Amino acid sequence: MRWQDLEQERCSVARTLSVIGDRWTILILRDCFLGISRFDDFERRLGMSRRMLSARLQKLVDKGVLRKKPYQQHPRRYDYLLTAKGIDLRPVMLAMLAWGDRYLSDGAPPMLLRHDDCGAQFTPVVHCSACGAPAPPGRVSVEPGPAAEVTALP
Amino acid sequence: MRWQDLEQERCSVARTLSVIGDRWTILILRDCFLGISRFDDFERRLGMSRRMLSARLQKLVDKGVLRKKPYQQHPRRYDYLLTAKGIDLRPVMLAMLAWGDRYLSDGAPPMLLRHDDCGAQFTPVVHCSACGAPAPPGRVSVEPGPAAEVTALP
Repeated sequence: MRWQDLEQERCSVARTLSVIGDRWTILILRDCFLGISRFDDFERRLGMSRRMLSARLQKLVDKGVLRKKPYQQHPRRYDYLLTAKGIDLRPVMLAMLAWGDRYLSDGAPPMLLRHDDCGAQFTPVVHCSACGAPAPPGRVSVEPGPAAEVTALP
Repeated sequence: MRWQDLEQERCSVARTLSVIGDRWTILILRDCFLGISRFDDFERRLGMSRRMLSARLQKLVDKGVLRKKPYQQHPRRYDYLLTAKGIDLRPVMLAMLAWGDRYLSDGAPPMLLRHDDCGAQFTPVVHCSACGAPAPPGRVSVEPGPAAEVTALP
């Protein structure tokens, strides 16, 4: 399988990787969720080359995850802002954050999540959209869907 | 920032990327969650080189995400099985799957999730561990924790 083929694969995880499956891209998105929007700020925080940063940002714009909004005309400069499609990647970020907090932070999480509605610090828990109850890993089954490539497992 | 430094960063997303921030690795884990456990099956399904596959599997074992269990003695062969730490990566996979289903599947998701407790097909929803209510992206704040590197945002 070549990486160019990922977005054609009949698997939503693989297709999602075709958009965000690059470590720099995920760090850029993390910074977007922290409120960073300007090229120079991304560059300073991430320490990646301007050329690579520019290419990653443009890909996210092309994929509809970020949008560019001019904040200066001469020379033209842009804020890179999450679209609704981009904001919907937050559960991916939260899930990575929760796992890192649990297993890789030695009990001292670098960032905390607060639930605005109840005011408490929390960790994200996966619930079922149908019944609303928790859906922990051991209580979830995966089945082939209408566009399944994998219909039989060994 | 160099990739070797990721696991030292004071950010749980970056640290998680130091373990799973490789597209092949995420596809290997996806297959583990689908019940694949043997080297030849990973190789056949993913079409990656044996050398690269071997290195990725060994890294996941070294990081405590997978464990090796012999199933044959001559020659020695192993099943690669998710540990508890590995199983806890399921929310990351589910979040990627849900986003791909929503935005990249043209309404025909390749895989479906079923909640064993209620029997319904579902999409994962993030809830708050403190109050149990939904915690959608717009109702979550991120704050510096005890080990924060980023204490002020622009």
